[in-house]
Amino acid sequence: MFVAKVTGSIVSTQKVDSMRGQKLLVVEPFRLEQPSRNQLTTTGRTFVAVDMLGAGVGDFVLISQGSSARFTPETQKLPIDCVVIGIVDSVNIEKQTVYHRQSEESSTARGQ
Amino acid sequence: MFVAKVTGSIVSTQKVDSMRGQKLLVVEPFRLEQPSRNQLTTTGRTFVAVDMLGAGVGDFVLISQGSSARFTPETQKLPIDCVVIGIVDSVNIEKQTVYHRQSEESSTARGQ
Amino acid sequence: MFVAKVTGSIVSTQKVDSMRGQKLLVVEPFRLEQPSRNQLTTTGRTFVAVDMLGAGVGDFVLISQGSSARFTPETQKLPIDCVVIGIVDSVNIEKQTVYHRQSEESSTARGQ
Amino acid sequence: MFVAKVTGSIVSTQKVDSMRGQKLLVVEPFRLEQPSRNQLTTTGRTFVAVDMLGAGVGDFVLISQGSSARFTPETQKLPIDCVVIGIVDSVNIEKQTVYHRQSEESSTARGQ
Amino acid sequence: MFVAKVTGSIVSTQKVDSMRGQKLLVVEPFRLEQPSRNQLTTTGRTFVAVDMLGAGVGDFVLISQGSSARFTPETQKLPIDCVVIGIVDSVNIEKQTVYHRQSEESSTARGQ
Repeated sequence: MFVAKVTGSIVSTQKVDSMRGQKLLVVEPFRLEQPSRNQLTTTGRTFVAVDMLGAGVGDFVLISQGSSARFTPETQKLPIDCVVIGIVDSVNIEKQTVYHRQSEESSTARGQ
Repeated sequence: MFVAKVTGSIVSTQKVDSMRGQKLLVVEPFRLEQPSRNQLTTTGRTFVAVDMLGAGVGDFVLISQGSSARFTPETQKLPIDCVVIGIVDSVNIEKQTVYHRQSEESSTARGQ
Repeated sequence: MFVAKVTGSIVSTQKVDSMRGQKLLVVEPFRLEQPSRNQLTTTGRTFVAVDMLGAGVGDFVLISQGSSARFTPETQKLPIDCVVIGIVDSVNIEKQTVYHRQSEESSTARGQ
Repeated sequence: MFVAKVTGSIVSTQKVDSMRGQKLLVVEPFRLEQPSRNQLTTTGRTFVAVDMLGAGVGDFVLISQGSSARFTPETQKLPIDCVVIGIVDSVNIEKQTVYHRQSEESSTARGQ
Repeated sequence: MFVAKVTGSIVSTQKVDSMRGQKLLVVEPFRLEQPSRNQLTTTGRTFVAVDMLGAGVGDFVLISQGSSARFTPETQKLPIDCVVIGIVDSVNIEKQTVYHRQSEESSTARGQ
């Protein structure tokens, strides 16, 4: 899995039938900045993930990929390879909290 | 999943039997340009995807990869790892629409 | 899937039993050159794929990866993650043919 | 699989039900430094893995990805694509030990 | 699949039960050097693969990844995503042998 920031959403009306009603989020994988590891920084990549947890723009989420994206009750038969499995409250590296959901408005995360 | 632009198609006559009649699109994954995230830009990569939705050159599509590509009624038994699961109408980032299908003729997307 | 050029083959006598008799091709994924997209160029990567279609050195082939490589009659139970599912006749980008099998002797594809 | 260093953990309260109680580690894949191959160095990437072995920050672990992450008794039905399958005692390259768990306090591994 | 050089091994005593007794090799994917394609060169990446064929340090092996790593009699239920499916005797590119097992002592492969 990886940690990603929700940056937006996509709309698609012509799609595979089983995808009707699925919420499609645009997410951007983040990584720890090197060598300090004291903040999250964007990888610059762009993915689309199905979300059933109510994540919103600006949230950091935990993303699972591949066949495992079908191992939730709602996604079992969907042709999807990327799903939100959690909304991240905090990322703790060594003895430091490098991301905390409530304090994010004042975040200094790069690439934000 | 990821958003990709349809750039063309491939023709193959000698192929695995189950692939007969499948439409093979050449697609190019796009990502949000950094750091502005105000337009889509190409990753420069080239994939081939099966399409059953009627996507055409210039369309942006939603692509699913891996075993999930076999989770549509038409692709269940195909030896494919990449399929179009939707035609993208719009990509919305924060409060901005960075891609809208109807307005794409006048698009300024880089790498187009 | 992706388009790759067959560059050679490998020989392995000590191998998993089910792999006996399998033809192992060395293939090199190609991509459209940017920003023109008017020819194929190598990615510089090297993969090994099982082939049952009779592809030869110099041919461009369509490659499927992952579990889907086991979705052909001959490869169902093999421990393989990469298979040739078609020999490419032509790659057509926008209104241009950037690769055509018969004309390849005089090709100007870079990285060839 | 790959060798990764445990750098921290993440907390997520809103998550897919089956994920309740799972320990989520932040891990960083390492590789052999080139061309000497005499120490491990970070790839700079960041993953999140489920751990059931009690790995702690600073440990090197063996990570398995994809559907195989579901092939342990505890993870069979989880929507996860990354799991710790072992805690690494030593990495031995040619005739040299480039990492040994007990001696790691005095390690000179770069990117640490 | 890809061709990789065996560079070492790892030892892990605390591990998932089903992994007991499995030999864990450190392997490094190689690719054809560009643009000549006349020798193998390292990609600089580091993987860990299960081996049941008796490969040793210095051998080139054929590696299969993902769920296919579980398609050998010995690995069916293991949580592994990377396995040695053959020991490479030779790699033949166009009309040249760029690697031959017996002659490897005098090899000029870069990144060795």
